[in-house]
Amino acid sequence: MQLLKNDLLLRALRQEKVERPPVWMMRQAGRYLPDYIKLREKYDFFTRVQTPELATEITLQPVEQVAVDAAIIFSDILVIPQAMGVEVLMEEGKGPSLPNVIKTQKDIDALVTNEVEENLNYVLKALSLTKQELNGRVPLIGFAGAPWTILCYMVEGKGSKTWEKAKAFCYVQPELAHQLLQKITDTTINYLKAQAKAGADVLQVFDSWSGSLSPEDFKEYAQPYLMKIADAVKEEAPVILFPKGSWYALPELSESSASGIGIDWTISPKMAREMTGNRITLQGNFDPAKLLLPIPEIKKAVHKMISEFGAQKYIANLGHGITPNIPVDHARAFVDAVKEYEGE
Amino acid sequence: MQLLKNDLLLRALRQEKVERPPVWMMRQAGRYLPDYIKLREKYDFFTRVQTPELATEITLQPVEQVAVDAAIIFSDILVIPQAMGVEVLMEEGKGPSLPNVIKTQKDIDALVTNEVEENLNYVLKALSLTKQELNGRVPLIGFAGAPWTILCYMVEGKGSKTWEKAKAFCYVQPELAHQLLQKITDTTINYLKAQAKAGADVLQVFDSWSGSLSPEDFKEYAQPYLMKIADAVKEEAPVILFPKGSWYALPELSESSASGIGIDWTISPKMAREMTGNRITLQGNFDPAKLLLPIPEIKKAVHKMISEFGAQKYIANLGHGITPNIPVDHARAFVDAVKEYEGE
Repeated sequence: MQLLKNDLLLRALRQEKVERPPVWMMRQAGRYLPDYIKLREKYDFFTRVQTPELATEITLQPVEQVAVDAAIIFSDILVIPQAMGVEVLMEEGKGPSLPNVIKTQKDIDALVTNEVEENLNYVLKALSLTKQELNGRVPLIGFAGAPWTILCYMVEGKGSKTWEKAKAFCYVQPELAHQLLQKITDTTINYLKAQAKAGADVLQVFDSWSGSLSPEDFKEYAQPYLMKIADAVKEEAPVILFPKGSWYALPELSESSASGIGIDWTISPKMAREMTGNRITLQGNFDPAKLLLPIPEIKKAVHKMISEFGAQKYIANLGHGITPNIPVDHARAFVDAVKEYEGE
Repeated sequence: MQLLKNDLLLRALRQEKVERPPVWMMRQAGRYLPDYIKLREKYDFFTRVQTPELATEITLQPVEQVAVDAAIIFSDILVIPQAMGVEVLMEEGKGPSLPNVIKTQKDIDALVTNEVEENLNYVLKALSLTKQELNGRVPLIGFAGAPWTILCYMVEGKGSKTWEKAKAFCYVQPELAHQLLQKITDTTINYLKAQAKAGADVLQVFDSWSGSLSPEDFKEYAQPYLMKIADAVKEEAPVILFPKGSWYALPELSESSASGIGIDWTISPKMAREMTGNRITLQGNFDPAKLLLPIPEIKKAVHKMISEFGAQKYIANLGHGITPNIPVDHARAFVDAVKEYEGE
């Protein structure tokens, strides 16, 4: 175990007093960074993800260039379907596609659930290497997609505005859906535990599409699996759940085994604090489009956000991934603004 | 003025006692109906929209084939940018595109705001003709896009997952944004008034993308214009506001001049009633994906929904438009289920 020079993120997740909130940005590694774009021109997506040296280099870029308080390993949520034996294609700029979608009991039976450490060994290697290269500068975040979100891709076969096929699969064949969700959950738990062992200090679970569900369906198809994951891995590392768009779930998730909940900007800091009874650390929720403001206005908006959340039990972040067209100095202004914040 | 044989929708909007809730479906005209698909093969999108006889035929199809309690005129929210002099292209199955986006003061100054009745005369003609053909069977709904949603398309130039350009336009140049929103609002008010004069009994305003805004930005860029429209046209016809995804705005909108608020399925009926203090008629909120359930289960789910909203001050509807792959008998089952509902 290595001592961390900057442990703000861990302290915020333990609800310990911090001098200022920690800050990182979802999708901070990649996309908008010129050095990443250069690598993208040389290596395709899965080469970047599956080559530990490249993944490490990309993971470190925002730590070194934007000075965030945490690194998050460069990877993808769809490595889980891959590790379960499902083909995933990634065409640059076009989003993922899974040619063989899950439809039947037979499809679910054919999924591999016990080879995640072997199949995703490249992620674990990337984590170890990154941990070593970080040399204690900041904590390292590992992550996975939430079972509902992974089911969305496995059933729909590609991104969707409505996730109608994925939902119909659940509504029409709930038993199959729960079997699939459980298999994804088991695999994800093993994967996250292995990530912690390999060096991840914090684990984030992205439920990118949970907001497409009604409160009732969230409780049926998303929440129980988020809870199981948080319960199973909390001893290994603190967990942050990010159920995007599912503001309605905040009261119950605030009583889960998670240490933090990520929120997007469609709920106000005040309302989110009320709904979570100030029981849990909140992370978010800057609208990434506001990073296109002039720098002084970015800083003003960030300070306003922090004062609304309060500087304790809080992790400054965006409410969704940073988008490709954000100038690097604007991303840096976001981070600087948090560091310059003065207040309790 | 013609007496309506079925005035359930109007009575629900006036908060009068009804025997059962009225029912209609967003996007009920088009998409999933085989007779519509036949017309689509013969006539392109704007021919269908701009030929009153075709628009009337399409508008009547769901009244005759699915037996909804209201007709909604077949048209598109992007007729407003067109009427303001902005080119709109519609490629079948690809969504709209607006090649000349709004960027500058000059672009805004060039917009036409006083020719809506001339430029959209075909809609008014379609309303009159439909009104005549309906012969009082059910009320006729006219509609328009909300100013924020129209701004989204005019600035972004096409559909978007993030509406980042539209938002950046507002955040970086709020004065220009408000000028544009006001111009759209003025045009929309004239358009909705003309629709009422031409025969629309109810007017719905679709804020399809308001859910991409934070509560604070909704209050700045969406809500004031929704309020202005409701204030300006309420004497002509009752207004339903549908700010999709903007659950946080329910308390304030429930005190507006609108007669109804549409909600999607990401808020529970109970929570929506609480947030609106039971002051206003609510419309919604069936997840269209649930129309893929077997018919008996559709009916069960519809009855559960009605019992949660209560049968009074309520309009049964989907929480978003019906999707193309819904079998017609499933759409009919949705409508039948409402008609078969027994309870207060």
